[in-house]
Amino acid sequence: MRRPPHPTDTPHRVVIVGGGFGGLYAAKALRRAQVEITLVDRANHHLFQPLLYQVATGILTEGEIAPPLRALLRSQRNVRVLLAEATGFDPEAGELTAVAHGGEPMTLPYDTLIVAAGAAVPDHDGDDGAHEAPGLKTLDDAREIRSRVLRAFEMAELTDDPAERAAWLRFAVVGGGPTGVELAGQIAGLARRTLRRDYRSVDTAEATVELLEVGPRLLPDFPESLGRRAARDLARIGVDVRLGAAAAALDAGGLELADGTRVDARTVIWAAGVTPSPLAQVLADAANARLDRAGRVRVCRDLTLPHHADVFVIGDMAAVEGVPGVAPAAMQEGRHAARTIRARLAGRPTPGTFRYVDKGSLAVIGHNRAVGEAAGVRFSGRIALLVWAVVHLRYLLGWGNRLVTVTRWLWTMLARDRGQRVIASQGSLKARAYNPIVNI
Amino acid sequence: MRRPPHPTDTPHRVVIVGGGFGGLYAAKALRRAQVEITLVDRANHHLFQPLLYQVATGILTEGEIAPPLRALLRSQRNVRVLLAEATGFDPEAGELTAVAHGGEPMTLPYDTLIVAAGAAVPDHDGDDGAHEAPGLKTLDDAREIRSRVLRAFEMAELTDDPAERAAWLRFAVVGGGPTGVELAGQIAGLARRTLRRDYRSVDTAEATVELLEVGPRLLPDFPESLGRRAARDLARIGVDVRLGAAAAALDAGGLELADGTRVDARTVIWAAGVTPSPLAQVLADAANARLDRAGRVRVCRDLTLPHHADVFVIGDMAAVEGVPGVAPAAMQEGRHAARTIRARLAGRPTPGTFRYVDKGSLAVIGHNRAVGEAAGVRFSGRIALLVWAVVHLRYLLGWGNRLVTVTRWLWTMLARDRGQRVIASQGSLKARAYNPIVNI
Repeated sequence: MRRPPHPTDTPHRVVIVGGGFGGLYAAKALRRAQVEITLVDRANHHLFQPLLYQVATGILTEGEIAPPLRALLRSQRNVRVLLAEATGFDPEAGELTAVAHGGEPMTLPYDTLIVAAGAAVPDHDGDDGAHEAPGLKTLDDAREIRSRVLRAFEMAELTDDPAERAAWLRFAVVGGGPTGVELAGQIAGLARRTLRRDYRSVDTAEATVELLEVGPRLLPDFPESLGRRAARDLARIGVDVRLGAAAAALDAGGLELADGTRVDARTVIWAAGVTPSPLAQVLADAANARLDRAGRVRVCRDLTLPHHADVFVIGDMAAVEGVPGVAPAAMQEGRHAARTIRARLAGRPTPGTFRYVDKGSLAVIGHNRAVGEAAGVRFSGRIALLVWAVVHLRYLLGWGNRLVTVTRWLWTMLARDRGQRVIASQGSLKARAYNPIVNI
Repeated sequence: MRRPPHPTDTPHRVVIVGGGFGGLYAAKALRRAQVEITLVDRANHHLFQPLLYQVATGILTEGEIAPPLRALLRSQRNVRVLLAEATGFDPEAGELTAVAHGGEPMTLPYDTLIVAAGAAVPDHDGDDGAHEAPGLKTLDDAREIRSRVLRAFEMAELTDDPAERAAWLRFAVVGGGPTGVELAGQIAGLARRTLRRDYRSVDTAEATVELLEVGPRLLPDFPESLGRRAARDLARIGVDVRLGAAAAALDAGGLELADGTRVDARTVIWAAGVTPSPLAQVLADAANARLDRAGRVRVCRDLTLPHHADVFVIGDMAAVEGVPGVAPAAMQEGRHAARTIRARLAGRPTPGTFRYVDKGSLAVIGHNRAVGEAAGVRFSGRIALLVWAVVHLRYLLGWGNRLVTVTRWLWTMLARDRGQRVIASQGSLKARAYNPIVNI
């Protein structure tokens, strides 16, 4: 197929798939370029994933970490935002296909395409198909986890059977990376600090959080001493850290580990392993892209698809040697793609190979501690929490959100309270009686 | 069936169904009584319904108007809260049956039962079964309405067809009571103030909100002059008020009115008519209670069921002559039931007939006006909005929620922004690839 002729006096058309860190920062880095940007996302919001676990544990609200893409790009007049899901692309014609809510298909011609559709945590179904462990990647996931965790305490209050009560008060978090560490710490804090005086039959401080990590230490991407420090700090706030623990099967009663041990936890959360967006496979099929073992797209050193210099793949979807799947990497890749496009348009030499600048790592542990590392310096405890707070507020978008977020953090720490404790989906008997519409 | 013998030295057992205004205020008014209270609700939160329309239009979050019942009753040690749905009762045995999440049934014996299960707005399905108009009664409803309204603007941006765009930019609100008036005003404000600069192909100020009222004036329960004032103020902010307009049928393209007129609005919201909780029918079947035409339970003048002095029915479920279905009425009824119980236990004369004290009515119109009436004095405009704000903050529960709510109101008025613009449910292609659990 031939590329349709494109008059040279119209702006260069950039289509970006995904408004996460990669796509959003690419769009922003093109704000002064003579381009016409179309940003396509199936959600209407950017998602500040590093704070998603705080939505899952009742501290922050959805709106505070998920500003609308439109609002973020309001004043950048060379961008239009479309709420649609990218479903396919034709590299020869230079066209992306997308589908809007309700199934309306559309074709978006591009001169340059940036694919930044991210990853998902697949839900893990049990062998019986009835039980599943939700992952944490979207706002819906966070809402589901919050509801499950809060409901578990309610179920513990309702039962008279001590074994069943213990199983409702036991939470298993699978995966000892930052998300698992942060979730486990916050669930323990919810039980020991926030909910303590709310129940009559249950002492919520008896709740246990089992943090299961298949490897030999927590936070495998952090310096080893910080993994040990995290394990020690977590143990102090009631998290039972199990290293070398591989989840083997999931059922209604909990988890079975590979060594045969059972974890009788009615609430299991999946914080290990992500799956790239289904668009990775679409790219593989349409452009002969190769995927790595994890399903990510192998890209050239300048982040373009092999043999398709007009297609960039960035963020969690892209397999780049030595680059972890974290927000700063996606931001840097987005900016690199934008710089390359600007250089091409200006006829300047392109930046070429993408180089990841590791700015360090941080993970929060419970309500008043963190561990972190930056430029070779390791820190932990309250100082690390302060650094963490400053860094995250710096990157959180919008002054209103920053203000409310700080207020909620202080509230959570000082008043030991959490503002968002709604259990979603209120049961089955919702009156759906059909009222005849005539004669209201 | 005989009532099981109840030792006289154990406290009087009060079971309350529903943690809305009626049930919660009854429980609170019994805080110093020698009773053992069990409060059963299928939701884990109280819901401050008068501000629910602000959740539906992106101003407030769920947590701010829905504090957990447990937290509200934390320090009242004679109450336990159970997350379960009441499904039946046996007036002879003095037992309520309820079902917890997951189907666990339980039996709760009572000496006095207070049924305050409220009402629901049934969703209205179209004749084709595909289209429906959500009502506004629960947090899930509010989330659904917010998503539909925000998605409509997205769909308008996506289409090239002028007629389709106009239909996406037209919103129909059925019902001209306070909820309809407040929703219509806020949707208009969203279009004209908040979203104005966010779209590229659409001028959101062209959006129209059709407010359909079957009767001859808006706010039928308010003094007539205020209904006229509300219609005038709404017209000024872009709401098209249609009086004597009866919705006759609902389809994918909008509404058909009884006089044959079509309203081509892709988004239709139902703000007319509530249905009492299905528990009303349960009471009718089990205790020979009679229902009125609206399905509410007819009660004696002291709010007890005829021939069952130990069962109170209060709030939106109860049909009491001259008492409207509003929050202050439910609160007063809850307190009346509590006073009656306390008097009985003390052997004092009971208060007898319930007398409703009408403290007035208020409705907000757009972002800076309201209409209201109290003690025969009518007020409107900015003064009325100020009165409205003070009254609602007074009854909103929790200082933290009051603080955040005021902040959000100021933000909405001054910055013309709204903090909660997430469209829920992110489409269909969510990766659900099954990762084998062995070998994480």
